[in-house]
Amino acid sequence: MAVYTDVSAEALEVFLQDYSIGGLLSCKGIAEGVENSNYLLQTQSGSYILTLYEKRVRQGDLPFFLGLMQHLAQKKLECPLPVVRKDGALFGELAGRPAAIITFLQGMSTGSPEIVCCRGAGAALAKFHRAGSDFALSRENSLSVSGWRVLWQPIRARVAAELADEIDRGLDWLTCDWPQGLPKGVIHADLFPDNVFFLGKEVSGLIDFYFACNDFYAYDLAICLNAWCFEKDLSFNQAKAAAMFAAYNRERALGPDECEALPLLACGAAMRFFLTRLYDWFHVANDVLVVKKDANEYLHKYRFFRQIVHPSELGIL
Amino acid sequence: MAVYTDVSAEALEVFLQDYSIGGLLSCKGIAEGVENSNYLLQTQSGSYILTLYEKRVRQGDLPFFLGLMQHLAQKKLECPLPVVRKDGALFGELAGRPAAIITFLQGMSTGSPEIVCCRGAGAALAKFHRAGSDFALSRENSLSVSGWRVLWQPIRARVAAELADEIDRGLDWLTCDWPQGLPKGVIHADLFPDNVFFLGKEVSGLIDFYFACNDFYAYDLAICLNAWCFEKDLSFNQAKAAAMFAAYNRERALGPDECEALPLLACGAAMRFFLTRLYDWFHVANDVLVVKKDANEYLHKYRFFRQIVHPSELGIL
Repeated sequence: MAVYTDVSAEALEVFLQDYSIGGLLSCKGIAEGVENSNYLLQTQSGSYILTLYEKRVRQGDLPFFLGLMQHLAQKKLECPLPVVRKDGALFGELAGRPAAIITFLQGMSTGSPEIVCCRGAGAALAKFHRAGSDFALSRENSLSVSGWRVLWQPIRARVAAELADEIDRGLDWLTCDWPQGLPKGVIHADLFPDNVFFLGKEVSGLIDFYFACNDFYAYDLAICLNAWCFEKDLSFNQAKAAAMFAAYNRERALGPDECEALPLLACGAAMRFFLTRLYDWFHVANDVLVVKKDANEYLHKYRFFRQIVHPSELGIL
Repeated sequence: MAVYTDVSAEALEVFLQDYSIGGLLSCKGIAEGVENSNYLLQTQSGSYILTLYEKRVRQGDLPFFLGLMQHLAQKKLECPLPVVRKDGALFGELAGRPAAIITFLQGMSTGSPEIVCCRGAGAALAKFHRAGSDFALSRENSLSVSGWRVLWQPIRARVAAELADEIDRGLDWLTCDWPQGLPKGVIHADLFPDNVFFLGKEVSGLIDFYFACNDFYAYDLAICLNAWCFEKDLSFNQAKAAAMFAAYNRERALGPDECEALPLLACGAAMRFFLTRLYDWFHVANDVLVVKKDANEYLHKYRFFRQIVHPSELGIL
C-alpha cells in the first residue's frame, strides 16, 4: 500500500475543471496500489479513482496503460475506464505528477483465495488475453529474463555467497532454456489477488494494469500460479492450480507447448518477484509508507517450481 | 494517517449482517485518522466510514464518543452519525476489535487554511460547544495538566538537560497557574484542520471525536489557535486568530475571564501536543504505518505563547 503525494483541495478543484464529472465532494487517500498514489474521489456524478503516477511509472507508458484500459472496457471486460478530459486527453498533471481519473470498480479483493476464486481468476485472465489481443499499442516486458540480471547485479554482493550462486545458476538456466515462439500478446503481468475484485464469489473486475506488457500468455498464467496457488504456509495447492488452468483453458485453449513450458515459466515468475522484492528491500526508503514485501516467499516458490519434472505435478492435465 | 488492521471481505460480510445498510460493494482502507483504522465502505445503500478502534481508544469510552456524535447530529450539527445495528447497539466487533459504521460526511480538509477557513472553524467550534452542552455523558480529559506529567516522566531523561529544565519549569507554571472555574462542557480537544471538512470555503462538518472530553471551552479554542493560526514557517498569523475569535464569539460569547486565560491555555495546548508527539516519537514502532509528527513544531509554539503578555497580542479584542 502507498499514498505518497498530498493533494490539496484547491489544486484538485483546478484539476477537475478539465473534466466534466461535476464538483468535488470528497477525496481520500486509499491503501491501494504499490507503485502509485491513489485516492477515492467523489464528485457530484459519482465515485472515481484518482491516480497520481509516481516516478516508477514512466509518463511515456501512460498512453499504453490507459489506452489498454479503454480498449478492454470497449471489449466489455470489467475493468476501470479512464475518464476522458474535455480536451480529449486521458491524463493531466496534478501536484507535479501525471494524473488520471478512472471509473470506480465495485468489489473487493480476497486475502485468502478459495478454489472458486482461483477458478474466477483463471477465467478472467483468459478473457483479458482475448480482449487485449487486438490492442494496437505494444510495450516490451522490461521485467523479463534480461531485466532480471539488471536487477540482480547491484544486489548480488549483499546476499550470502551460497544464495548468490543459486541465483546465478538459476538466471543462467532460465536465460538458456527460456521458450521461444509461444503465443504472445498483452499480458497483465501482475494479476495478484490484490488486483482481482469479487462481489461475493464472482469476479467483478480486474484493476492495476501498470505492469501490462507484451509477452507470452502462458507466462501470465505462471505468475498467477505463484500468486494464487500457495497456501499461507507456502505449500502448493494443486487443486487450486488445476481449477485455475481448467477455467483459463475453457476461455482460451492452452497449446501443448504452453503447458509444457509452464513449470519453467513459473520458475521465471518466482525469480522475477524474488528479485524485485529483494531489490526494493535494499533500495526503497524506510520513510515512505510502503510495506516491503517478503522476498523469501518467492525464493521458496522458485525452489518449489525448480524441482517440478512434469506439468501434471502442477495439476495441469 | 494509518491503516493498521486488515479486514477480509468474508469477515466484513458477516459483520454487515448486523446492519440494515444492504450488501457489500467495496471497502478500501483510507489514510484518515491517526488512532484508528478507517475504511471507506460502499454498500447497496451508499457510502459509509467503517472504523476499527485500535488499542489507544478504550472500549469503555465508545458509548461517550458514539453517543456524542448521535447527540450532535440530533442537534443538527454537521458530523458523521453512527449507524445503529439491528440490535440497537452503536458498535460491534470485527477482526478482534470494536468496530462502528458511521455515515459518510462530504467535504475535504484543507492543508493550508486561509482566513475564511479559520473563521469557519471558529464558528463551527462554538456551534459544537453549544450543541454538546446538554449531552448526558461526560469524560474526563486525561490529556490535561496532570496527564502531561505522566507523559513527561518516562521521556524526560531522553532529551537534552536544558530542554528538560524548560519543560519542568513550564509544567510547574502551568500546574500552578492553570485556571479554575472557566465555563466547561464537552470539547472536541483535537480540532485540527484534518478534522474540519469544507465544500468550497464553507464548513461541511466536523469529524474525529475520539479525543472529546469535558474541559474548558476556551481550552478548545486555545487548541485551535495552535492548530490553525500558524503559517508553514511557524510564524503566528494574528489576522487568522482574530477571525477565528470573532466567528467563535458570534456563536458563543466568550467571557472576559476566558479571554484573559487564552494565552496560558494556548501554552498548555502547545505543551500537550509537544509532549504527546515527543512520547510517540520514542514509543511508536517504526513498522506501523504512522507518520510520526514533528514535536519541535509545538515546542516552538509553546515558546511563542509563553512570551505573550496580553490577549490582544493574539488578536483578541
